[in-house]
Amino acid sequence: MSEKRIHNFNAGPAALPLPVLQEIQESFLNFKGSGMSITEVSHRSKWFDDVINDAIARIRRLLKLDDTYQVLFLQGGASLQFAMIPMNCLTDSDSADYVNTGTWATKAIQEAQLLEKNIKVVASSEDRGFCYIPENIAYSPKAAYVHITSNNTIKGTQWPVYPDVKGGPLVADMSSDFMSRPFDVKPFGLIYAGAQKNIGPAGVCVVIIRDDMLKRTPKNIPTMLKYTTHASKNSMYNTPPCFGVYTIQLVMKWLEETIGGLENMDAINRKKAKCLYDVMDKSRFYQGTADLSSRSLMNVTFRLPSEDLEKQFVQEALANDFGGLKGHRSVGGCRASIYNATTLASVQTLADFMITFERKNG
Amino acid sequence: MSEKRIHNFNAGPAALPLPVLQEIQESFLNFKGSGMSITEVSHRSKWFDDVINDAIARIRRLLKLDDTYQVLFLQGGASLQFAMIPMNCLTDSDSADYVNTGTWATKAIQEAQLLEKNIKVVASSEDRGFCYIPENIAYSPKAAYVHITSNNTIKGTQWPVYPDVKGGPLVADMSSDFMSRPFDVKPFGLIYAGAQKNIGPAGVCVVIIRDDMLKRTPKNIPTMLKYTTHASKNSMYNTPPCFGVYTIQLVMKWLEETIGGLENMDAINRKKAKCLYDVMDKSRFYQGTADLSSRSLMNVTFRLPSEDLEKQFVQEALANDFGGLKGHRSVGGCRASIYNATTLASVQTLADFMITFERKNG
Repeated sequence: MSEKRIHNFNAGPAALPLPVLQEIQESFLNFKGSGMSITEVSHRSKWFDDVINDAIARIRRLLKLDDTYQVLFLQGGASLQFAMIPMNCLTDSDSADYVNTGTWATKAIQEAQLLEKNIKVVASSEDRGFCYIPENIAYSPKAAYVHITSNNTIKGTQWPVYPDVKGGPLVADMSSDFMSRPFDVKPFGLIYAGAQKNIGPAGVCVVIIRDDMLKRTPKNIPTMLKYTTHASKNSMYNTPPCFGVYTIQLVMKWLEETIGGLENMDAINRKKAKCLYDVMDKSRFYQGTADLSSRSLMNVTFRLPSEDLEKQFVQEALANDFGGLKGHRSVGGCRASIYNATTLASVQTLADFMITFERKNG
Repeated sequence: MSEKRIHNFNAGPAALPLPVLQEIQESFLNFKGSGMSITEVSHRSKWFDDVINDAIARIRRLLKLDDTYQVLFLQGGASLQFAMIPMNCLTDSDSADYVNTGTWATKAIQEAQLLEKNIKVVASSEDRGFCYIPENIAYSPKAAYVHITSNNTIKGTQWPVYPDVKGGPLVADMSSDFMSRPFDVKPFGLIYAGAQKNIGPAGVCVVIIRDDMLKRTPKNIPTMLKYTTHASKNSMYNTPPCFGVYTIQLVMKWLEETIGGLENMDAINRKKAKCLYDVMDKSRFYQGTADLSSRSLMNVTFRLPSEDLEKQFVQEALANDFGGLKGHRSVGGCRASIYNATTLASVQTLADFMITFERKNG
């Protein structure tokens, strides 16, 4: 295994742990002695049963979930959740609160509005281009739920701590920081995360849903859009995205057995982020785009003195085997996504490259 | 590569061509020199653009699609299509025809009914346990579309030729025989196929949709459930199931370059099916469950003289490296699924095994 590998700073799909990729590769023609690829075994077989149940058990342990929560593997990404959440959890007589912290939160809001649901945008950071997480928010006492986006990939902001909303349950899009740090699950009624950033390949969305939220599903919405459909069948009402679930299982195993859990993962992730933010804070060449108190530990966004320099930076980085440093096409600039699988060594190498680049061009 | 491999007769997820699995395995840590796995490259990268566009181009060539058709890669399987089709293509003032040929057609019908759409079941083979494809059907002259299920995995039946419905466009669930034979696409307004039987892993559904069907999408349905959303973004409105699309690309390449197109594939598939049906037709031990004129070329379903013998057959088969021969849990009996990737050699070996088993136990 001496394959050339780059330093992968992609925003998603993103880096996966090398030992996980190696295990997939090694067993790809003959999974666990089945004589079949994991892509060829039946989802009703003991092989796949072991995979999905182990994936669920590991997620439960890592997040310390009690029996009131179920773990589901769905399709359609976070984008389909934007619709499923109000369709399942918001009756016509109720209203839900939404906090707008950027592109993905905006999409969640627009989808609820498209479906003619009663929602209230209780706070927004749009006034300053979504560069911060709002504080001191007046949540509605009777909100059916409060929807937040835990980390904002495009603008590089993240909730440092989750808000105490008093009333309704929290519902969170954790696509881009799921499993990156420990947190208290109790205030959450529903958590969802597209896998392709921190825990697996594109094509699976993990949904963690509490019993009380499952009781809200109305009868007349499409079967595949009901959380109850999937909860009652252990995510196998229809054929699940087996390869994605398998990859998630291996990533959870890596998190538990190699990293040693979410506290350790968090400590590593903080070191990685500090490494890059320190370069920026000591420099007038690199300018962070997020307010200090709202900085993301997952997506480090920054600008250079000119767009030409940004272009040159991304190109030279690529030539030095740093991939994915171009900012999102909607905002420009630069972005280093440093999800769980991006190593501290890769981040340190990038920090050195940034310092050298500034020295030559600053 | 001397991995142990079995004869895979799974109904889905099912066998994939060995050269495809080998190519995935070999490039899994470094896709096309990117220094990343295919699961780690961005869906907005040139690497993935090449993958998805080549997959589409090959599907277009194999099916001889003209410019009025678009090829989409969606999530949620055929089960989500059961809802999307009436939601997108059937207004409240129109009615659609459905032909009920078994479990999956029944689910499509029930989903349209759940959504309170006007549909008419114009024919059904339920009277004899779905063991045949109805003939001489009186289709509604003004049907918005006519929905059929081209192949029925559970009961082992298949439309030998597609019906001339005169009025509205055909809509077909081709999940279990897509790309197994050539056919004239012109009468079809929409074709859908879960990948996990003939063309790829679980987690992608191919949808082929004609321009006139795209014009029917109403405004107030969820964004992710609109065909127009995906058609206008080349299936990249949100992150697509990249690994699945990549596998489909390789299977399409295998179909074009190794097999030589759908005519050749059809000839091979007919030989495979004949091989097993010949054993059954020369035997009083193995009894086919489908009417002769409706027999599937993909799923060969049969019974043995007793349930005990069926159990013994499946067990001895497994001990001899034949996997997946147990019938669907809803009907019992035996089933050999012989999709594109199951080789003629595997099928011939199974035929020999069946003859030997009969000799010993008949």
